[in-house]
Amino acid sequence: MGKKVKQGLVMVNTGNGKGKSTAAFGVIFRAWGRGFDTCVVQFIKAETGQWGEIKAAKKLGIDWFAKGDGFTWTSKDMDETIARAVDGWEVAKEKITSGKYDVIVLDEFTYTLAFKWLDTNEVIDWLKANKPKDVHLIITGRDAPAELIEYADLVTEMKEIKHPFNQGIVAQAGIDF
Amino acid sequence: MGKKVKQGLVMVNTGNGKGKSTAAFGVIFRAWGRGFDTCVVQFIKAETGQWGEIKAAKKLGIDWFAKGDGFTWTSKDMDETIARAVDGWEVAKEKITSGKYDVIVLDEFTYTLAFKWLDTNEVIDWLKANKPKDVHLIITGRDAPAELIEYADLVTEMKEIKHPFNQGIVAQAGIDF
Repeated sequence: MGKKVKQGLVMVNTGNGKGKSTAAFGVIFRAWGRGFDTCVVQFIKAETGQWGEIKAAKKLGIDWFAKGDGFTWTSKDMDETIARAVDGWEVAKEKITSGKYDVIVLDEFTYTLAFKWLDTNEVIDWLKANKPKDVHLIITGRDAPAELIEYADLVTEMKEIKHPFNQGIVAQAGIDF
Repeated sequence: MGKKVKQGLVMVNTGNGKGKSTAAFGVIFRAWGRGFDTCVVQFIKAETGQWGEIKAAKKLGIDWFAKGDGFTWTSKDMDETIARAVDGWEVAKEKITSGKYDVIVLDEFTYTLAFKWLDTNEVIDWLKANKPKDVHLIITGRDAPAELIEYADLVTEMKEIKHPFNQGIVAQAGIDF
């Protein structure tokens, strides 16, 4: 029921490399190990429940709200993708103010800002006014807007140095998804 | 009992930013969600069992071999620190060839190479000769040697853009450890 965090941080994992979402799930894993209450709102990825992290979260009793309808670049209906992402922000706001969670991940949330489906300044103003001080927030995704970086306490850029997909190796279950 | 991986990758998370180990634990979490067999050999961090990730791993039945005796920069006995790290490599070799694991994390392993406690080329030659093709290996830590980056399939640099410790905010349970 929350309230285990001393000083809630806003953390952003951005950049073109791997590990943005994965590091956020690693924090969830670590926080779960300490008995913290955690949840994930996922903005882009599919609702299939086939992803390894969703399977793990289900097994562990971590709340997982998948609002996305697949990667945007494969979406057939862009309006639907946008509507789901915007609805995801409503869900996120409800979770952030619920008092139920110590650590909340907004996975792939930067896209909703970078693509201007949501107004970055409005989102930040809402967070400044409403995010409880004892809630940690982790936001992931490429192209984090400058305003979000300015607002965040901790920002890490995951930078691709070498990637096997460029060498003809395909994504693999359990590692990449 | 292993054998769930199609094509084992060697992944390196390096750089001065956060998320190197955390992303590796995120992969473990994801792989566990899919029923993969995983283990962690930890080279530097303390054996206290107080870390959130160790608590989580214990709860989940993930094998965790903590060989380090605390952060090197706080070690009182450097010889002991080095001996434990070198012994960690013996444990790692045994786990890598055991056939028991699909995904193995060598956490903070780069330090043993960067500090020349182990010879990087000898380690890579051993991996080339002995790592089963169906085992994923994730190596974390700052200052990954060039030879390791050359050998790896996937390398991500976690780059610090903004860090709250620089702003007087201290490390927090469940998030940082």
